[in-house]
Amino acid sequence: MSHPHPELPSPPPLDPAALRVVPLGGLGEVGRNMTVFEYAGRLLIVDCGVLFPEDNQPGVDLILPDFEYIRDRLDDVEAIVLTHGHEDHIGAVPFLLREKRDIPVVGSRLTLALVEAKLKEHRIDAYQLQVKEGQTERFGPFEVEFLAVNHSIPDALALAIRTPAGLVLHTGDFKMDQLPLDGRLTDLNGFARLGDTGVDLFMTDSTNAEVPGYTPHERDIADVLDGVFARAPQRVVVASFASHVHRVQQVLDVAVAHGRKVAFVGRSMVRNMGIARDLGYLTVPGGTLVDLKSIDDLPPNKVVLMSTGSQGEPMAALSRIANRDHPAIHIEPGDVVVLASSLIPGNENAVSRVINGLTREGATVVHKGNAKVHTSGHAAAGELLFTYNLVKPRNVMPIHGETRHLFANADIAVASGVPRERVALAEDGVVVDLLDGVAKVVGAVPCGYVYVDGSNVGGVAEASLKDRRILGEEGFISVVVVVDSVTGKVTGGPEIHARGFAEDDSVFDDIRPELVAALEKAAEGGNADTYQLQQTVRRTIGRWVGGRLRRRPMIIPVVVES
Amino acid sequence: MSHPHPELPSPPPLDPAALRVVPLGGLGEVGRNMTVFEYAGRLLIVDCGVLFPEDNQPGVDLILPDFEYIRDRLDDVEAIVLTHGHEDHIGAVPFLLREKRDIPVVGSRLTLALVEAKLKEHRIDAYQLQVKEGQTERFGPFEVEFLAVNHSIPDALALAIRTPAGLVLHTGDFKMDQLPLDGRLTDLNGFARLGDTGVDLFMTDSTNAEVPGYTPHERDIADVLDGVFARAPQRVVVASFASHVHRVQQVLDVAVAHGRKVAFVGRSMVRNMGIARDLGYLTVPGGTLVDLKSIDDLPPNKVVLMSTGSQGEPMAALSRIANRDHPAIHIEPGDVVVLASSLIPGNENAVSRVINGLTREGATVVHKGNAKVHTSGHAAAGELLFTYNLVKPRNVMPIHGETRHLFANADIAVASGVPRERVALAEDGVVVDLLDGVAKVVGAVPCGYVYVDGSNVGGVAEASLKDRRILGEEGFISVVVVVDSVTGKVTGGPEIHARGFAEDDSVFDDIRPELVAALEKAAEGGNADTYQLQQTVRRTIGRWVGGRLRRRPMIIPVVVES
Repeated sequence: MSHPHPELPSPPPLDPAALRVVPLGGLGEVGRNMTVFEYAGRLLIVDCGVLFPEDNQPGVDLILPDFEYIRDRLDDVEAIVLTHGHEDHIGAVPFLLREKRDIPVVGSRLTLALVEAKLKEHRIDAYQLQVKEGQTERFGPFEVEFLAVNHSIPDALALAIRTPAGLVLHTGDFKMDQLPLDGRLTDLNGFARLGDTGVDLFMTDSTNAEVPGYTPHERDIADVLDGVFARAPQRVVVASFASHVHRVQQVLDVAVAHGRKVAFVGRSMVRNMGIARDLGYLTVPGGTLVDLKSIDDLPPNKVVLMSTGSQGEPMAALSRIANRDHPAIHIEPGDVVVLASSLIPGNENAVSRVINGLTREGATVVHKGNAKVHTSGHAAAGELLFTYNLVKPRNVMPIHGETRHLFANADIAVASGVPRERVALAEDGVVVDLLDGVAKVVGAVPCGYVYVDGSNVGGVAEASLKDRRILGEEGFISVVVVVDSVTGKVTGGPEIHARGFAEDDSVFDDIRPELVAALEKAAEGGNADTYQLQQTVRRTIGRWVGGRLRRRPMIIPVVVES
Repeated sequence: MSHPHPELPSPPPLDPAALRVVPLGGLGEVGRNMTVFEYAGRLLIVDCGVLFPEDNQPGVDLILPDFEYIRDRLDDVEAIVLTHGHEDHIGAVPFLLREKRDIPVVGSRLTLALVEAKLKEHRIDAYQLQVKEGQTERFGPFEVEFLAVNHSIPDALALAIRTPAGLVLHTGDFKMDQLPLDGRLTDLNGFARLGDTGVDLFMTDSTNAEVPGYTPHERDIADVLDGVFARAPQRVVVASFASHVHRVQQVLDVAVAHGRKVAFVGRSMVRNMGIARDLGYLTVPGGTLVDLKSIDDLPPNKVVLMSTGSQGEPMAALSRIANRDHPAIHIEPGDVVVLASSLIPGNENAVSRVINGLTREGATVVHKGNAKVHTSGHAAAGELLFTYNLVKPRNVMPIHGETRHLFANADIAVASGVPRERVALAEDGVVVDLLDGVAKVVGAVPCGYVYVDGSNVGGVAEASLKDRRILGEEGFISVVVVVDSVTGKVTGGPEIHARGFAEDDSVFDDIRPELVAALEKAAEGGNADTYQLQQTVRRTIGRWVGGRLRRRPMIIPVVVES
């Protein structure tokens, strides 16, 4: 699952006049965004996020960008600049700071507040520099101008990065909602001004490049919510992302309009909305918020529950409600549940299980599939065209997305008039140099997946995941044989244990005599070698279980000397 | 994952004047459809299909309906009537016939041909009765009239089942394409005639009840394919379901129009299209079909590959092509790949990996998300309304779908004027009796999931699946201790082996002395009891691995006597 690029050479030494761009995450996947810029021996890091694992990465908690490329060069890092506060842009910051604590962390007010909560958990006290749109800061040879962009979290920034090699415009995640809830528009005037000056490399969000047209306004959702709240005879439960301040704001506003009180449900919802409220990003009308404990004292038609769990996460509040497993909340007929969120690919079955459970309990479930209760945070193809026409970039490098999204974004750039040879299509680890006004792929650096797994960071290799996949699909058999260390004879066992496929170890009664015979033959003369006995076990058991049970469990022969 | 209904009682003895309907699969899930009808002590089975496992059922090959309810009554079964030849309607027939070989199997010509291929694999020679639309047959007390319906496989049938208790109309899977490729319309005249006579219970396909409007015509896809073929500079690869004869027919026709030859790719595609062609359901213009081996002799713009793997199945042809792992087919820039299929929920990540791989190799990928290259085989809400108005049923029982689909279908019935109390909402195992013109839920019978796992049918319990989930997420540690059977002293080990989480067994060097000390303490005096030593291992290792590695692997203590 890593993206080695064996067809690409190691990059050449960096030309003193060139800017080097090395994506360490986020190109070829949706998540763990991280890009390293290098000029004259100094490094600037943009974003440092996590990726959430897929089904074929069992037991993994998180996936980090691969820091290997910069591990020996942490002293050269001028700063980590964060575009916004989503996990896939900030989640790996504590892991990088664990390797070097004094790298300055730069971001907007809300972004830093969300990072701060993470750093506290990791007991890291970081150097922070708070910035806002319109501001320009210098980090070594990098001059960075911050521009406002609109996204599904407040206070997101695009970056104009100037070095003597040229001007790079990096959008971060963005869209172009022309009626944003907080009035903070994506700074297209800034994009236009930079475009008129001359943007040498435009790095832009590919997530929705396959989606035609324009992303609907966040504000449009309010009308839909209003209708849902108006018709709901009993309680309304709304689930969304715990960082989507504007979505929650709309729920609060509609609740007030219908005389309903709101309780936050789920630890991250309570925490993030606390931060957003303290900093003034969320406005809570007086008396609207109630404690979850007190909701049973209110008439059901005066209640809104604002919950986590919109992706069907099994331990989140909404799944537990759907499974009749939540300590405080039980669905009653007439309750309405709104999934005001996207459906992240891979979560379909989990979300459908939640919808089925809620339906069975008597709830009406409103979701993206039957009502316009969600709009994306990423610019669709139409918006991307706008930006290409405004920015008129000399070179383009699509970022943030799976391969299909990067290619689709490239096609949009070409449609707007950018020559195809000026579009640098890179994936994680692929190195792009900007030199003399031309951006080109010049090589690749090793860049794998780094798994966080319990307390273990990076120690879990693909081999362990492969073992887990086999164990999870097929189970295992362990066979223990005791060998006398003096005589070399088999003196104990074979003890056969299996998990994950046989209900009952008595199925091994058939094979035991055959195995004993094979082991005795191998141990004949008392000079059995451990490896030889292991191979005997593996071969005998493997053949039998494959033929008889048609399975291929992991076989663990254990030879103990006694 | 079973649907026990502890809140429902066992059903009462069947009234001699009543018809009993017992769904054993397909209600509460999409798949393993099977319904048992009982009248006067005799049984009629409609469909007998399989369900494909989800991620939380690891290692499972197939899931069958639970035959437990009828296991002691197989002598009472008059026939298995099959509505059409899809796996989720016929796949479990061999497993039922294994329990009693002489139950007659009834179905249309294509359906029986597809069942026959399965039965051959299982070496079963079944009694078969071939039927067609317009025909009426009697099976004991059940008189069954067969009506044509249009679906995503040819030769599908609806069933009008008459007993003295009343008339049941069972749609099977269907839609109402008004321009079907084979001219074989869903027999709405028949539905209307039955409606005028009086349908006591209408059992109808819920799969698309949440989809508003009407399913587009299969024929509309031809125009889209035509455009794609016209613009494709090199080869065209089309992936679809291996049973979708009409989709393949359209690909053949469009290929001929553009002077291209077609090769079938994938074992099931070759087999099923062979059957369909032999029986006259697929028309292959002379000289169109070529062998996969000879495609490299043709110019790329004269080639179409008709392939399996549209759901991203890892071993199917298309995944292997996308992974550069197919022996005969390698994507070249300019190739166009069309996924002319639905995207079954749960397969999103797998399909996206295929699209990313093909894109990276230079292919243009056309799919349901960016072109109208698929239309569903199931009636959408608008079509369902039509049928309710034509059939004017006294009672309704939504079938085929997850809970959310069944509830949505119920709402459509009610919107058409069926009183809500006349809609029997049942899930697998829930028993509905039709008596005196009223259908009512009267109880429930046990109805679990039956897993096929290697050669093992039904022997895999939820406990094994739970073990697999733990093994897959967390891995395991086995600790082997040898105890002298005479002295009771620990004479060998502890040997510690772990798989799935530690890269290197040397991490256990830390815990080994502690474990030895604990074991020695437990074995003090030479009277260590096996269970006691196991518990010592479990406790010591569990505490350490939880605290130190933050993991909870399965712990297998093995105490061997020597």
